[in-house]
Amino acid sequence: MSVEETFSKLCLSSSDNADAVAIKTLVFKPKTAKTAVPVPIIVVALQSTQTPSNVIAHVTKTKDPRLARDELFQSFFQCEKATEFDLNYLEAASSEFSVLLDNQLIETDSEKKLSLNEGKFIIQQSQLVEYLQKYSPTHVDFSQEIVSPAPAAKGAKKDVKKDAKKDGALEDAKLIGITVDKAKDFPGWYQQILTKGEMLDYYDVSGCYILRPASYAIWETIQKWFDTRIKRLGVANTYFPMFVSNKVLEKEKDHIEGFAPEVAWVTKAGSSELDEPIAIRPTSETVMYPYFAKWIQSYRDLPLKLNQWNNVVRWEFKHPQPFLRTREFLWQEGHTAHLTSEEAQEEVMQILDFYAGVYEELLAVPVIKGKKTEHEKFAGGVFTTTCEGYIPQTGRGIQGATSHFLGQNFSKMFNFSVENPLGSEHPKLFAFQNSWGLSTRSIGVMVMIHSDNKGLVIPPRVSQFQAVIIPVGVTSKTSEEERTRINKTAKEIESRLLNSDIRATGDYRDNYNPGWKFANWELKGVPLRLEFGPKDLQQNQVTVVRRNDSKKIIVKLDDHLELNVQEILDVLQQDLYNAAKAKYDSHRVIVDEWNKFVPALNAKNVILSPWCGVEECEEDIKASSSRKDDGEEFEEDDKAPSMGAKSLCMPFEQPPLKLNQKCIKCEKKAVTYCMFGRSY
Amino acid sequence: MSVEETFSKLCLSSSDNADAVAIKTLVFKPKTAKTAVPVPIIVVALQSTQTPSNVIAHVTKTKDPRLARDELFQSFFQCEKATEFDLNYLEAASSEFSVLLDNQLIETDSEKKLSLNEGKFIIQQSQLVEYLQKYSPTHVDFSQEIVSPAPAAKGAKKDVKKDAKKDGALEDAKLIGITVDKAKDFPGWYQQILTKGEMLDYYDVSGCYILRPASYAIWETIQKWFDTRIKRLGVANTYFPMFVSNKVLEKEKDHIEGFAPEVAWVTKAGSSELDEPIAIRPTSETVMYPYFAKWIQSYRDLPLKLNQWNNVVRWEFKHPQPFLRTREFLWQEGHTAHLTSEEAQEEVMQILDFYAGVYEELLAVPVIKGKKTEHEKFAGGVFTTTCEGYIPQTGRGIQGATSHFLGQNFSKMFNFSVENPLGSEHPKLFAFQNSWGLSTRSIGVMVMIHSDNKGLVIPPRVSQFQAVIIPVGVTSKTSEEERTRINKTAKEIESRLLNSDIRATGDYRDNYNPGWKFANWELKGVPLRLEFGPKDLQQNQVTVVRRNDSKKIIVKLDDHLELNVQEILDVLQQDLYNAAKAKYDSHRVIVDEWNKFVPALNAKNVILSPWCGVEECEEDIKASSSRKDDGEEFEEDDKAPSMGAKSLCMPFEQPPLKLNQKCIKCEKKAVTYCMFGRSY
Repeated sequence: MSVEETFSKLCLSSSDNADAVAIKTLVFKPKTAKTAVPVPIIVVALQSTQTPSNVIAHVTKTKDPRLARDELFQSFFQCEKATEFDLNYLEAASSEFSVLLDNQLIETDSEKKLSLNEGKFIIQQSQLVEYLQKYSPTHVDFSQEIVSPAPAAKGAKKDVKKDAKKDGALEDAKLIGITVDKAKDFPGWYQQILTKGEMLDYYDVSGCYILRPASYAIWETIQKWFDTRIKRLGVANTYFPMFVSNKVLEKEKDHIEGFAPEVAWVTKAGSSELDEPIAIRPTSETVMYPYFAKWIQSYRDLPLKLNQWNNVVRWEFKHPQPFLRTREFLWQEGHTAHLTSEEAQEEVMQILDFYAGVYEELLAVPVIKGKKTEHEKFAGGVFTTTCEGYIPQTGRGIQGATSHFLGQNFSKMFNFSVENPLGSEHPKLFAFQNSWGLSTRSIGVMVMIHSDNKGLVIPPRVSQFQAVIIPVGVTSKTSEEERTRINKTAKEIESRLLNSDIRATGDYRDNYNPGWKFANWELKGVPLRLEFGPKDLQQNQVTVVRRNDSKKIIVKLDDHLELNVQEILDVLQQDLYNAAKAKYDSHRVIVDEWNKFVPALNAKNVILSPWCGVEECEEDIKASSSRKDDGEEFEEDDKAPSMGAKSLCMPFEQPPLKLNQKCIKCEKKAVTYCMFGRSY
Repeated sequence: MSVEETFSKLCLSSSDNADAVAIKTLVFKPKTAKTAVPVPIIVVALQSTQTPSNVIAHVTKTKDPRLARDELFQSFFQCEKATEFDLNYLEAASSEFSVLLDNQLIETDSEKKLSLNEGKFIIQQSQLVEYLQKYSPTHVDFSQEIVSPAPAAKGAKKDVKKDAKKDGALEDAKLIGITVDKAKDFPGWYQQILTKGEMLDYYDVSGCYILRPASYAIWETIQKWFDTRIKRLGVANTYFPMFVSNKVLEKEKDHIEGFAPEVAWVTKAGSSELDEPIAIRPTSETVMYPYFAKWIQSYRDLPLKLNQWNNVVRWEFKHPQPFLRTREFLWQEGHTAHLTSEEAQEEVMQILDFYAGVYEELLAVPVIKGKKTEHEKFAGGVFTTTCEGYIPQTGRGIQGATSHFLGQNFSKMFNFSVENPLGSEHPKLFAFQNSWGLSTRSIGVMVMIHSDNKGLVIPPRVSQFQAVIIPVGVTSKTSEEERTRINKTAKEIESRLLNSDIRATGDYRDNYNPGWKFANWELKGVPLRLEFGPKDLQQNQVTVVRRNDSKKIIVKLDDHLELNVQEILDVLQQDLYNAAKAKYDSHRVIVDEWNKFVPALNAKNVILSPWCGVEECEEDIKASSSRKDDGEEFEEDDKAPSMGAKSLCMPFEQPPLKLNQKCIKCEKKAVTYCMFGRSY
């Protein structure tokens, strides 16, 4: 094809691509009137640069730019498919388009080699930048978000190094609070509420994020709740090193196979190369179990129940997402060894109940408990139990936490066996093991489910602050005396609540008006706003406003104040759960016929279907439900649009199987209902 | 010198030593009768292999082998000084000696290059092993400790991979419990009580250790105590990523200079080389402060007070020591920014008081609070406050925890300034900052101070278990009914104590006799043993035995049981503190004349001396107090024997300076008393 040569001839031999920097070329189509011809937007950026749609919209002054579908490539660039597109096709464009060029790419060393289209083209940075000049590209700082001058945007992402740019950003800014619609651009919305709500900040190492106090406080609440419960089971906390020697890491081949591609390696200390590279734990099975073998010398040493709260590293190369897919994350990992299979399995289920409790009781997130299929279970274990959540906006399932029964696989591998308590004439016994983990991913699920276009909505039981007291109705006509009394009483309310263990705070700043404060605290998701003004003062009351639905409740400042506020918090917590549960319930549908399966999936459901239990059939279901190109839907995560339905779990609570019920996909007899869905 | 050539000629060109493995050659002299000729022991081992003296003693069947002094080198090997010794000198030996060869060295790849005498000799592994054959070396598995068959030794270090060796180890074993005298071989004792007491285990990555439940429980108690207090100050917990880009790490040159040689670098993920190496945080100043700059937009955003409980990595190349010097460790790091210097400094002192509280109130470890000299302060800060402990066995000071006032140095570097609250016509203000940290080192200090030759002694306030109930006096003649009543009542005592928040446990195992159990729980350091036997049953009492001094106290099983046991615990806690304080007080001496300084130091004191405050004089004091060779004293830590006195701190509580008092070392006027000492 002749067009290919124009750009291609600049390129270097592709054998030189060892240390080339990966570049992505994305094509967006903005929303236009049906009759108008859209102007496609070509984004050329470092693979590692995030290119949020709201930044693209802002820079190009367009509306809702979304990843273009094949039709656009065909009609504009004479290119058959999105996946075949490369820069050569720009030459063939049939009409106007615009090019955005990532500042970070521009700032890359001009002699650096770049790799485009997964290594198809290797080109020097200077040549690529020069080549693109003919399309008059707009240089874009994708890391510089559209921020507001008001402190409400303090949490917004901004390039901290370039102070000169601050003023420019401020000039541009027109928007306070969340500027992306949850229903229209879910990934963009998610990023904004996290950063503007001050839960999290982006960090200069890709895939790593800063957990700010608002989110860390949630994690601390989860820790305390779960830690108390596992300690009652006799689990003790411990801390194993985060470094693993290669030798130990590779000890269980099947197990490590799944983790190997994501292991981060330390090869250097100071200026010295290490003799052997050392891995950072992706999980601690092989770190811990050699010591289990050492410590378990008798059946009296069983059960051994250890847990650690720690960080692990999985260097994923997929698109990172705050909380959901991060290269370093916090979790707990429990590892226990038991004399009998029954005792071990009982614990697996007990822990799964705790996990469901974290989601349902603390985070107000409904989950379905069940068992993973053989294909989806933890590598090296016997079976995996899971609690599965549901994200209504994307219609995707999300794995909440898993509790694995490992059987004797690892204990045989690491040789921890004990004398049979029945006597030495009986065979030695290998311990039965479990491992179970819950991570900060849970916080992301909670945010996605409850929050809205005004910002975060945090369930009261985990919220850093449960109630914010804001003096209102103070005008220039208010007497100094009345102003003082309002502030004083507001502070009294605050301290009364604090003394009753309600996490209250007050916003008495005089440089912001109440309206601004309302928006600011709504952004942060504080469950209750307590407005206190002249009328409240007069009537000895306070006006309580619920974050989730703005419902107002008048509460008297009598002896029952604390109890009443606590009750409002409890009801709000329950309401959040109920609302989320109603959505999950209405989008979990039973489908018995294959021809209804994909439509149900596309209607953002997770699906309970009768299934034969055969792995090949599971794979067939996934492949057959992939949507090759269903058009407009925009997902930051590239893999989403074509994603088929995975098996999420075989729920413990099963609909009754009809007699001779066949599998949804094949002709075999169904043995269980399985829950399928697109997933994170 | 001709002898040099024999070994030397085998060696390779020393320019090839880039990836050579470091080898150490140590010479030990065992204790013998004064008239006997000792047989020196030559240990050839990987630098990274720990070669505990008790293993050497066991293998060579000698007593108390210690690092040899210069005299031995002169008389046996015609070598002037220990520091000049190399393998060539073996040729010149005037009498018998034995050679121990590290198994790990033998197992090293035979083509691997080895580096001896700090790179003076480079030799291939196979050649070194072959060369040493003429001395008939004994192959030693230094990682295999002398363990006992009884479960008391469960925590002992053993090669978990080589099961075949287990039986051999068991045959060798003659020793139960701690086999090293605290007074004679302090490092060997320290290692044994930690591992046998099940506080910690050695790990297969050098410099990393496993914190087992007994030590992690102490850390949790410290966390809870300190966390509650800083939260009352308005400090919020947060979590920043552990990865740092090179660019950010190097931002503050002075600061990073101190850390650079110890930074661990990730260069690879899965099978891909990273474009840029990424560092693991050695501390988080440069990780956090770019975001401080972003978040602090107005003086109303101040103070900003963040803390994190996390792991950090400092890849030290010095001899690692459990808790005291480890490559990964757990700590908290607080980072705060304030509008005024006064407010910041007030917090520095408040935090220092909390640190002293952790040591004195929880760990029963007395500390001296003071300020570090300019030379010893935190790089990049204005001043550093510290609490300094004292280890009686070695006479060395130990830094407990530090709280730094950073001034405006970092805030200027990272540019976080705010409008002056007085108005925009006044100059912008840069924030005043603090950082402060306390690590798991504190646990090591506690162990060194209170524990004894029977094992650990853990202060009640931090001990995982505070009391263990053990049924006693049950013999073959005891009736079944009495046996049942004893066990039942013992369990009732346990649950009564548990219900009163006393961390009790019971040891009702029937396969061990009470004597074995006593020793086992003494090894673990549980503060109180509650013996309950037929006589106690009869008299409605329980016999309480204090771990620290074996003092027995009879406590009636009446309504006051819980209160009485709590009081015994409180008194024990205080007694431990008082005993440690008495030792510290009697070994903290005021010395005004230089000629008494080194003798006082050698008498294991820390020294308060009048000092001029000049850095050069401080260095002179250190250099002048180094002991080049004071002979027999054995220290695992190579740097110790020649260590001079460092300035530990200028105590806040000062003895009165005499009029015209001169500096202890120079002729200048003294401006303060400074505490000097050898230190960790």
